[in-house]
Amino acid sequence: MDNRPIGVFDSGLGGLTVLKELLKKCPNESLVYFGDCGRIPYGTKSRETVQKFTMQDINFLLTKNVKAIVIACNTASAFGYEMAKEHFDLPIFEVVTPGARAAVRETRNEKIGVIGTPGTITSGVYESAIHKVSQNAGIKVVSKACPLFVPLVEEGWWDNEIAMKIVEEYLLPLKTEGIDTLVLGCTHYPILEKAISRVLGEGIRLVSSGVEIAAEVDEFICSQEIVTTNDIQKREFYTSDSIEKFAEMGKDFLGMEIPFIEHVEIDRF
Amino acid sequence: MDNRPIGVFDSGLGGLTVLKELLKKCPNESLVYFGDCGRIPYGTKSRETVQKFTMQDINFLLTKNVKAIVIACNTASAFGYEMAKEHFDLPIFEVVTPGARAAVRETRNEKIGVIGTPGTITSGVYESAIHKVSQNAGIKVVSKACPLFVPLVEEGWWDNEIAMKIVEEYLLPLKTEGIDTLVLGCTHYPILEKAISRVLGEGIRLVSSGVEIAAEVDEFICSQEIVTTNDIQKREFYTSDSIEKFAEMGKDFLGMEIPFIEHVEIDRF
Repeated sequence: MDNRPIGVFDSGLGGLTVLKELLKKCPNESLVYFGDCGRIPYGTKSRETVQKFTMQDINFLLTKNVKAIVIACNTASAFGYEMAKEHFDLPIFEVVTPGARAAVRETRNEKIGVIGTPGTITSGVYESAIHKVSQNAGIKVVSKACPLFVPLVEEGWWDNEIAMKIVEEYLLPLKTEGIDTLVLGCTHYPILEKAISRVLGEGIRLVSSGVEIAAEVDEFICSQEIVTTNDIQKREFYTSDSIEKFAEMGKDFLGMEIPFIEHVEIDRF
Repeated sequence: MDNRPIGVFDSGLGGLTVLKELLKKCPNESLVYFGDCGRIPYGTKSRETVQKFTMQDINFLLTKNVKAIVIACNTASAFGYEMAKEHFDLPIFEVVTPGARAAVRETRNEKIGVIGTPGTITSGVYESAIHKVSQNAGIKVVSKACPLFVPLVEEGWWDNEIAMKIVEEYLLPLKTEGIDTLVLGCTHYPILEKAISRVLGEGIRLVSSGVEIAAEVDEFICSQEIVTTNDIQKREFYTSDSIEKFAEMGKDFLGMEIPFIEHVEIDRF
């Protein structure tokens, strides 16, 4: 048994879509979330910058005495996970492998599309993960960076005419390639699910990592016998930008009011 | 006479459009540029975060022994200038007042539009500057935040159908208000000038701060007799993200190859 919290971080608020699934799957666990809103986005920045940010984010969560870390950001998973795993001595989860696993399970025609930030896509991390998970070199992976999706979500244009046009511009080429499954390889993208489904039509399944990673974390803490026995669950939220901004937009992502938010000077870690 | 360089900074590459004008106006001066590409954008972040970034950016430039600072970022000018002026003991220039001055000079019907990042627009800094410069409370200022313009520029969609649609969505309401002058209150926006002109039509003048601020800096160093007498001009560029990314996109903004780029760990300052 281990009553310490699980630490979750993302470049901003997107990771709250992952936290939401964790809250459903492991409601008894204490959770500490850090959103690096002061330095968002990670997805357009270089490998070295994202690695440095990832290390700082984890160093901060360690000060909260966490028993495990969930990297709820695809770009940080792509660039920072290997380095973090080598450097830190606690269980660390990333979002790419669970997303790849779900896609391999869902596809029927072995043509999988992956969309994400420029960082995630150029890293090629989903392609490797899909081939590794499936043990099938024949699976075709078609990838596409969609750098305007995050700002679109943050502007609140989730299914207006412009959103539809941008979704078409990025995704129609994937449809033409004949994919039957699409991995939403960025935690912001589930918010655009409606527009994406409308453009792609019903024949293409959408896969995101939230549900998958929550199941994985739950299975791990049960099998390792490190579930909590506390009656009271901690819910703490930290941001590197202003508390007000986090509170305001955060509740849309999480689907509930956020009880406890503190500011962090992340560059001190 | 003062042979030290002038320091210029921006949240990323946009400030290179200002540097370009400085290179034209004061070609003999040495120039040191810092682009905070590792933490871009500033325009969607809180006042406190942008203030902290501004102080760190100036602290870094001071290590390069600069004789003056140009804040070539509208959001940093809006949120960080006053604090910087109080804290540092050297001439500091910002981009808002020069833009406001140009707009007041250009308008005929006293209806001025201002577009910028959410930070710049909510700060109300252009409205104050326009009223202060014109000494005319009757001037009408219509402001509009355009958060998708920066990602649009960075995606390279400068005048395709989607760019036109987004420009229309943001700017047609300003046209309806009857403005005859529009301040491009963000250093990225001059790149969208063609699309903006097409949407607004010929009757509306576009104003940006680059030319204006270069003239102001030139006038200042001449009147203070702190121009350089060096024959060799320093051109140094620093970025908080990767050197490769800076080199690649930077030359499009500057209109020339960038000779010297170094990485900076900006959070140490």
